[in-house]
Amino acid sequence: MSQLSEFVSSNHDRNVEELKELLRIPSVSSLSEHKEDIQKAASWIANKLKTIGMEHVEITQTNGHPIIYADWLHQENAPTVLVYGHYDVQPVDPIDLWETPPFEPDIRDEKIFARGATDDKGQTFLHIKAVETLLKLENKLPVNIKFCIEGEEEIGSPHLPQFLSDNKEKLACDVVVISDSDMWDRGVPAITYSLRGLCALEFSLKTANTDLHSGMFGGGVQNANHLLVQLLSTLHDENGKVNVAQFYDDVLELTEFEKEQIKALGFDEEKLKKSLGLSDLTGGENDFPYSEKISSRPTLEINGLWGGFQGEGTKTVIPNEAHAKITCRLVNNQNPEKIQGLIKKHIEEHAPEGCTVKVTLQDTGNPFLTPIDSPMIQKAARAYEQVYGKSPVYKREGGSIPIVSDFNQALHAPVVLMGFGLPDENLHAPNEHFNLENFDKGILTICSFLELM
Amino acid sequence: MSQLSEFVSSNHDRNVEELKELLRIPSVSSLSEHKEDIQKAASWIANKLKTIGMEHVEITQTNGHPIIYADWLHQENAPTVLVYGHYDVQPVDPIDLWETPPFEPDIRDEKIFARGATDDKGQTFLHIKAVETLLKLENKLPVNIKFCIEGEEEIGSPHLPQFLSDNKEKLACDVVVISDSDMWDRGVPAITYSLRGLCALEFSLKTANTDLHSGMFGGGVQNANHLLVQLLSTLHDENGKVNVAQFYDDVLELTEFEKEQIKALGFDEEKLKKSLGLSDLTGGENDFPYSEKISSRPTLEINGLWGGFQGEGTKTVIPNEAHAKITCRLVNNQNPEKIQGLIKKHIEEHAPEGCTVKVTLQDTGNPFLTPIDSPMIQKAARAYEQVYGKSPVYKREGGSIPIVSDFNQALHAPVVLMGFGLPDENLHAPNEHFNLENFDKGILTICSFLELM
Repeated sequence: MSQLSEFVSSNHDRNVEELKELLRIPSVSSLSEHKEDIQKAASWIANKLKTIGMEHVEITQTNGHPIIYADWLHQENAPTVLVYGHYDVQPVDPIDLWETPPFEPDIRDEKIFARGATDDKGQTFLHIKAVETLLKLENKLPVNIKFCIEGEEEIGSPHLPQFLSDNKEKLACDVVVISDSDMWDRGVPAITYSLRGLCALEFSLKTANTDLHSGMFGGGVQNANHLLVQLLSTLHDENGKVNVAQFYDDVLELTEFEKEQIKALGFDEEKLKKSLGLSDLTGGENDFPYSEKISSRPTLEINGLWGGFQGEGTKTVIPNEAHAKITCRLVNNQNPEKIQGLIKKHIEEHAPEGCTVKVTLQDTGNPFLTPIDSPMIQKAARAYEQVYGKSPVYKREGGSIPIVSDFNQALHAPVVLMGFGLPDENLHAPNEHFNLENFDKGILTICSFLELM
Repeated sequence: MSQLSEFVSSNHDRNVEELKELLRIPSVSSLSEHKEDIQKAASWIANKLKTIGMEHVEITQTNGHPIIYADWLHQENAPTVLVYGHYDVQPVDPIDLWETPPFEPDIRDEKIFARGATDDKGQTFLHIKAVETLLKLENKLPVNIKFCIEGEEEIGSPHLPQFLSDNKEKLACDVVVISDSDMWDRGVPAITYSLRGLCALEFSLKTANTDLHSGMFGGGVQNANHLLVQLLSTLHDENGKVNVAQFYDDVLELTEFEKEQIKALGFDEEKLKKSLGLSDLTGGENDFPYSEKISSRPTLEINGLWGGFQGEGTKTVIPNEAHAKITCRLVNNQNPEKIQGLIKKHIEEHAPEGCTVKVTLQDTGNPFLTPIDSPMIQKAARAYEQVYGKSPVYKREGGSIPIVSDFNQALHAPVVLMGFGLPDENLHAPNEHFNLENFDKGILTICSFLELM
């Protein structure tokens, strides 16, 4: 046993007790009654960072909840690592389903149960402990370190992008590390190297200046619902491909290695079909395998559509307006604003005669990708190998975490998502927990990563 | 001036005073607080029928409001005429817009203003007065007469069909006459000889057993909204024709005379476009003129459609269900139940793979047509000619009045719709009125009609 792992192991109980302190603070960011708890959690983190030897510890208040910054910058020629995490948590409802109270951490079966145990107090804490360990053993760090820990992740990080753009110099770094994701399976680490981006828009379609009676006008005037159907039916072709001109132009196709990786991971389509009650998985582009479609291909989904009468019974109305809401999942190197523009153009150009359409552009979020063969991803992989004895799985997630690409774009630094959670740890649900087998191993993996820089 | 018109003219003031009595009773059928008023109006009608010499006057209570029956059956070899009308009225809101109170009849500019003045107390009263006039002058009628006057027309006549089918023998007749429609214009009488029928249905389309997250599943599973659009887009072809197999099979095409009649009446399409704010009138079947499309052609309208998220902002949901409501306007000789079946079959057969659809059949109402050249229509036409000095316009209405075909089908007798209202008499609106120029003329026209039998 190395000196490092011996140290981590001998401090295990103390470290877990400290995490419990943090987990006892009910820092629910979405509920105003917890505003003080949020401040308390922020102070706890800031004090802990000071205690372990971090410098320039600052709590920046925002119009929402505070962001904590700290650094240690004494390795002049070494790279700088920025750690992002969050100290806020999800609400606890439904409270009745918790076996032990969500803010009274309890250890059972080598798991620590509490709201925030894995998302993300537990995982953020591993970084604090890694830095503490290295400083205690060596009195210095192998790299420069900055922490940026926020309290609004669970409500969409409304103030973080501004903070990033206001503090580009202070936050400048060579790599951003985030532990807010999960491993592939027990004992099998994973690096999430790609997330899909997002763009959203909605439109209204109008015909006459009022709803009309189908007895008096039926058969003679346009029905907004009919025109909506006509227009929406142009958005996909018969193979499920998005039928908007230039939509796929900038899509970065998967490399052969990535395709093999996805294939090798396997995917139990039968199990999924059964659990969703579906007879087939034929959504989207029919000429791609399911696992690629949900992770590596862009989509256009009609999330909502409505027009006319929705009540009980019948109403012989010819509606004069109809509506649709659309979001796209995007992949590198698609630009969300460009895609919004293409769809807007498509809708305007394909609007049937006899109606006017009004398109409203909504949210955007960039897709994120750090190439598997990039040095930072490979260093993270080697760190996992050293501690877990296994190469990590390289994962693409189909969802979007806009702050990941915000960091990427604001700081021009690659982002590495090193997850230590397990997929069944009930995040956002009752009985959230963190498997303690990944507690010491997580600290050690982060130490290795920093040493490999 | 004939003896008849002299008599009607000399009784004008008394007749109008009597109508005012009826108009003072606020017999609003949709409001429970007027339940007693409804009974009062029914008694008033029944008493009036007795007073003028009608026999077997009966008030039949229903689970709703009562139906009045009366007859005079002393012309053994003459035909029997059944008069239908209603003594209930619409609510008066918005009350502020009435120039004089709705239940205090007021005469201005030779018009009588009150709720029910034209719809339908005023027009029903003309028949009572015609019978009274003939009986007073001749001590007998040229035909047998039956009255059937209900109090639930404004709430959809829920109890009338049962009453008709329970009393087929009692109500047996050679013709049903209804005055609850309007003339073409001042001085230009009209006979409405056709109404469209109706059928309604709705369906739900389901995919997975729950809504799904577009980040985790987007591009891999079917979106119920997409499948709804796909399915609904099969219901019409590119020329606006209904694309359901056999839909048009039983449509009785217009005769050349009817087409000429419609054309001769003319229609100001520019004026309509302007009032509706439309750039064109391209709804429905593009190869038919507007006036034919809205009166003589069947339609299929999507009155409502909805699926997924309709709130503010965005929601990255893949909805697992979507819905649509459909009604058709039907023409002779389409059968509403048959058409419902054809549409249900179309929906089930065109449901895309990967979803289940559930179709629910709703209301039906038969189309109505009494041919222009039928003897009863021609007798009504001659009666109008005698009094107004002008042939009536033959009108098709695009709307549906199910009770008209209910009479037609229950009693196997032709129905003649002889309107004495004018198109701008504000029925169902504030300041409803009846033009008194059609009061005496209405009585005289009905007398002529009965004499021509």
